[in-house]
Amino acid sequence: MDQRIAVGVLGATGSVGQRFVSLLDEHPWFRVTEVAASKRSAGKPYSEAAQWLQSSPLPEAVADLTVREVGASMDTPIVFSALSASVAGEVEEEMAGQGHLVISNARSHRMDPDVPLLIPEVNPDHLALVDRQRWNGGGIITNPNCSTIGIALALKPLHDAFGVRALHAVTLQAVSGAGLPGVPSVEMLDNAIPYIPGEEDKIERETGKILGDLTSAGVEAAAIEVSAQCNRVPVVDGHLAAVSVGLKGGSELDAAELGRILAEFSGEPQDLGLPTAPARPIHVLSGEADPQPRRHRDLEGGMAVSVGRLRPCPILGWRFVVLSHNTIRGAAGGAILCGELALARGLVPGVSGTWPSAS
Amino acid sequence: MDQRIAVGVLGATGSVGQRFVSLLDEHPWFRVTEVAASKRSAGKPYSEAAQWLQSSPLPEAVADLTVREVGASMDTPIVFSALSASVAGEVEEEMAGQGHLVISNARSHRMDPDVPLLIPEVNPDHLALVDRQRWNGGGIITNPNCSTIGIALALKPLHDAFGVRALHAVTLQAVSGAGLPGVPSVEMLDNAIPYIPGEEDKIERETGKILGDLTSAGVEAAAIEVSAQCNRVPVVDGHLAAVSVGLKGGSELDAAELGRILAEFSGEPQDLGLPTAPARPIHVLSGEADPQPRRHRDLEGGMAVSVGRLRPCPILGWRFVVLSHNTIRGAAGGAILCGELALARGLVPGVSGTWPSAS
Amino acid sequence: MDQRIAVGVLGATGSVGQRFVSLLDEHPWFRVTEVAASKRSAGKPYSEAAQWLQSSPLPEAVADLTVREVGASMDTPIVFSALSASVAGEVEEEMAGQGHLVISNARSHRMDPDVPLLIPEVNPDHLALVDRQRWNGGGIITNPNCSTIGIALALKPLHDAFGVRALHAVTLQAVSGAGLPGVPSVEMLDNAIPYIPGEEDKIERETGKILGDLTSAGVEAAAIEVSAQCNRVPVVDGHLAAVSVGLKGGSELDAAELGRILAEFSGEPQDLGLPTAPARPIHVLSGEADPQPRRHRDLEGGMAVSVGRLRPCPILGWRFVVLSHNTIRGAAGGAILCGELALARGLVPGVSGTWPSAS
Amino acid sequence: MDQRIAVGVLGATGSVGQRFVSLLDEHPWFRVTEVAASKRSAGKPYSEAAQWLQSSPLPEAVADLTVREVGASMDTPIVFSALSASVAGEVEEEMAGQGHLVISNARSHRMDPDVPLLIPEVNPDHLALVDRQRWNGGGIITNPNCSTIGIALALKPLHDAFGVRALHAVTLQAVSGAGLPGVPSVEMLDNAIPYIPGEEDKIERETGKILGDLTSAGVEAAAIEVSAQCNRVPVVDGHLAAVSVGLKGGSELDAAELGRILAEFSGEPQDLGLPTAPARPIHVLSGEADPQPRRHRDLEGGMAVSVGRLRPCPILGWRFVVLSHNTIRGAAGGAILCGELALARGLVPGVSGTWPSAS
Repeated sequence: MDQRIAVGVLGATGSVGQRFVSLLDEHPWFRVTEVAASKRSAGKPYSEAAQWLQSSPLPEAVADLTVREVGASMDTPIVFSALSASVAGEVEEEMAGQGHLVISNARSHRMDPDVPLLIPEVNPDHLALVDRQRWNGGGIITNPNCSTIGIALALKPLHDAFGVRALHAVTLQAVSGAGLPGVPSVEMLDNAIPYIPGEEDKIERETGKILGDLTSAGVEAAAIEVSAQCNRVPVVDGHLAAVSVGLKGGSELDAAELGRILAEFSGEPQDLGLPTAPARPIHVLSGEADPQPRRHRDLEGGMAVSVGRLRPCPILGWRFVVLSHNTIRGAAGGAILCGELALARGLVPGVSGTWPSAS
Repeated sequence: MDQRIAVGVLGATGSVGQRFVSLLDEHPWFRVTEVAASKRSAGKPYSEAAQWLQSSPLPEAVADLTVREVGASMDTPIVFSALSASVAGEVEEEMAGQGHLVISNARSHRMDPDVPLLIPEVNPDHLALVDRQRWNGGGIITNPNCSTIGIALALKPLHDAFGVRALHAVTLQAVSGAGLPGVPSVEMLDNAIPYIPGEEDKIERETGKILGDLTSAGVEAAAIEVSAQCNRVPVVDGHLAAVSVGLKGGSELDAAELGRILAEFSGEPQDLGLPTAPARPIHVLSGEADPQPRRHRDLEGGMAVSVGRLRPCPILGWRFVVLSHNTIRGAAGGAILCGELALARGLVPGVSGTWPSAS
Repeated sequence: MDQRIAVGVLGATGSVGQRFVSLLDEHPWFRVTEVAASKRSAGKPYSEAAQWLQSSPLPEAVADLTVREVGASMDTPIVFSALSASVAGEVEEEMAGQGHLVISNARSHRMDPDVPLLIPEVNPDHLALVDRQRWNGGGIITNPNCSTIGIALALKPLHDAFGVRALHAVTLQAVSGAGLPGVPSVEMLDNAIPYIPGEEDKIERETGKILGDLTSAGVEAAAIEVSAQCNRVPVVDGHLAAVSVGLKGGSELDAAELGRILAEFSGEPQDLGLPTAPARPIHVLSGEADPQPRRHRDLEGGMAVSVGRLRPCPILGWRFVVLSHNTIRGAAGGAILCGELALARGLVPGVSGTWPSAS
Repeated sequence: MDQRIAVGVLGATGSVGQRFVSLLDEHPWFRVTEVAASKRSAGKPYSEAAQWLQSSPLPEAVADLTVREVGASMDTPIVFSALSASVAGEVEEEMAGQGHLVISNARSHRMDPDVPLLIPEVNPDHLALVDRQRWNGGGIITNPNCSTIGIALALKPLHDAFGVRALHAVTLQAVSGAGLPGVPSVEMLDNAIPYIPGEEDKIERETGKILGDLTSAGVEAAAIEVSAQCNRVPVVDGHLAAVSVGLKGGSELDAAELGRILAEFSGEPQDLGLPTAPARPIHVLSGEADPQPRRHRDLEGGMAVSVGRLRPCPILGWRFVVLSHNTIRGAAGGAILCGELALARGLVPGVSGTWPSAS
């Protein structure tokens, strides 16, 4: 008998929703038993409602599920949300109120004081916030913005070692980050677009919360000055960021030592051996023109972040380039890892004890 | 009778060389009478030697010119050089020694103490260096790096008004900047490459010289801390730069005032009405996602730089996005404008008086 | 005083609508005085309602026009329609009934027996159909499908000389042909899509009508077997077609002679010197890898079709590659040329005599 | 102990060479023990000589191999050749003469009367030609052109069932097919190139040989009229072909039945369970816009061909679209499958009996 935990996916027909379905296929702990989307899709089989765009085939177990309308009740202890922010806020609260653990990719609740903005390798302790939430048994965990995740992950070991005081990030972001339909190709071919609505604010606000300290009053954001400029480029998947960083110490280090600090970084998901966790969260590449989206976005199934060109910055101290797969580590994969951590820590409603030892 | 001044083009079959030929077609002051390229092309008609890649037709007057080998003597007072740096250094010196005014797009002599690194709107006074050069009648003028030109042009009015103390630039550069064959398409499609050999150094070194002061000892570079990170993106033409800038003053200004300073900037080429000069060197765009390479690179025939997203930078003070057409303003067009200024100032060997009043 | 004829543009904010506005700027005979679009845009100034995507600046004379809702009455004798087929059918009939000459880019009325499907160089005699239409003074003229135009234009001189019996066309079509928003970039980058809804039918049906004979009963379609396969490729502008053609004669010809027949082709727009007419409708290119969209789509302002690789086809007889600019010759530019021909022939309501001699 | 058979790769640093190295990593029967490339690479470790462009990491077992110069003797019974045609002809003969079984991706020997042009599912009986070759123990087997493979595979079941009399193929080919450096990105972005040197000839000549009958005099080519037009498009991997086909029978069939014939096709590699063989060589897709390069090229590890849009052709009878991964099924993967079949049939020098039963 399939003892895996049933999960639902909200916004299952969109770009990130499809990634959830694809990545959860043959997942050892979870299986998708419910999918929800907008009214237009409701009542149809998933295979018909979703215009499947992944290069892997549509998993058969999901193809025949009947799509529910977002807002309808679901029977799964865990609900992954790929909803757009325009509807996510309310729906996710409702689902949490009904006792689900909602793990959301939407921005709606990210800055709520009692909601963890979670990167499992970076701030697993923030999960304690869930106990302070007002939902009866349910809860909300959020996944940071797709660009922020890669940057914050690369900053974490530097923040631990020296403290980060300033971050200047210019991103080159893939079109899959804009969802569907996203950017018209007539605007994107032979072009770069130096603005992504809302994106810079997210990087500027989320980074401090992710790297902040948990206190009795909530998360105290790390005091980091952040300047972000976000650009859309004709790349399918993989967000690149040119990062300059000011540290509170470490002036005596050379690039090789700094690289070692990044490469050796490891966190709780690695300790626990969570199924979706990369063996090494940060790969430090030595190629002079690395990382590159097409060549490195799929490292460790798209869950590892890659860093290259680590060198001094004449203005802020250090600079480097960081790449992460925006719809895997930066969205669906990252959220699944959050779910795995929540399960391992016994936070999933109705699942007693810890997992997988409990099984 | 055609009274225009005969000019030659070195490296005429390459990407920038073709732009020279294309832009000089029907030029009111200059006409191309000699073209030189590598040994492989020498002796062939230009139409056969050059794999013409421009979208405008190959000018008939040039199509039938027989290509000379680079290094052979030429009969034109002005020589535009689109040579690669590997050969430019020596050849350009030879040509200057033979009495030509060489206007070069190559990096070889840019940092020579007695060679102007010229943007006609920015530092026309640096042209005085030509008189200090050791060539008998000839001379060398250089055009800055294609990325640097757009950035330095946008900085100039700010430098005049307040002084620039720091520049952080992250570029998204078009593939035409890599010449021919340049970046293989199998590396560039669905990809971004976070490194362009030598490019960051050029921005970091050239900016100070361009904005520097002419002294009796040469150009004293402006004291600007520069951090540059250069990326190649799948765009045909048009270099975009995300710029953060630290000023020595101006903290009381708002973005609209700063924008006005940029938009109202004008220089000697505009005063003189040089044929290739844009009416307004800097266009400040109000669209929230502007400038964009495909939409704005051709403003004023590719000679105007466009600036958008002018806003405060939490770290350095101000930030904006600047776009310039890398093979027009950033290469061939910029060099032609240098030639026009040199001619107007009476620096072209054998052409007495100033131009066009002398005609 | 501006004696030009006032024209209106329906669907003015879309991709083809913007091309109309752009191409009609500084047109010697026409000036845009009214623009209409969907309810959402109505009441706004055009500059605000249209997300301007052209690389030329938005013409000032149009920027401030207030957008009307499609269906509202207009005061212009000529109305260019860039409406989508979903609304064009009815609206265009209404406008014709109100006495306007409607020149439409939509497919709705193309196959109507009394409506000319007009390529001015190919079938100008079909204009006589307008007199048979039931509208009081007004009329409807249609522009063929964007892919069909280039192909039919290239076939015309062959059809005149030998008769065409079979056409096999495989297209590589640009994304601008899909309008706005059109194909999402996440589907188009690093991809080709071997299907364009409705497109193959249009080529298969329209070609025969365009090359057909005007009879008292309407147009008798040319008896040509047509097989079309349409593909979308990551190109901004310019539809390419790989064409194989079976002729009823001409087996004794060689490729050079056939090329001459194409290159020497000229029609009524050339005879009349219509302002938008290309000097030569068909350019036969000799480059072994020509024509190419980026390099040749703008020949003669995008109004010339280019043909290359003319050679025998082992199956059908002859084959070649044909390129046309899909939003200029294949849409807005082609329709404007239809309008010029109609005006020159005295078909524009309320404009007495022929034009421009009448002025 | 590793009992796998040692294989060498000629031209190992190029685009197809890298695919060989990548696909042979963890192959159950073969292991790469020797790599050869041009003089420039000889003597260097492979990791340094090859500019690794695959998205999977460079296999460690190969990274440290010292690259030999092409032409130096090798110790492996099987040699896979990814040489360019300019050197392949002679080198491959030498290697065969030295007793190696050469499995080549180059065109040099494809049309030799005694050399099989092998697609293991299509013409495995042609392998018998190897016994007629003049090499002492060694032999040469060739892999067809990358475009031809997909087309011929899709034609095979139709040829078996009805006989193919005519083939009209227009391809949209990926840039990886051009090797390294291949097409400059400045030519490929926002463009399509309607010519690939030599490619049309290959399709026109190779198809008949592949589908031909083995006789005592060699292969008698199938009598098929072939017309091919090849285009390069901005796609990384995956060749698409729009195919019209004339059959000698089958006029009574409908598209569903024809689709079934394709989908049910299976060959000797499937019967033998060769490790690289796809479960189903031809996938018939039902999506109206399928197959698409990015979405379907990786089906069954890139070894399955996908077919869609099967429908009548007004001119030739039937038409459809076929996609194959050009560097996997169309090059390295196809050649490896040839090697597996040769091994299974006991044709590998020095390996007695059949494989894997012999192990």
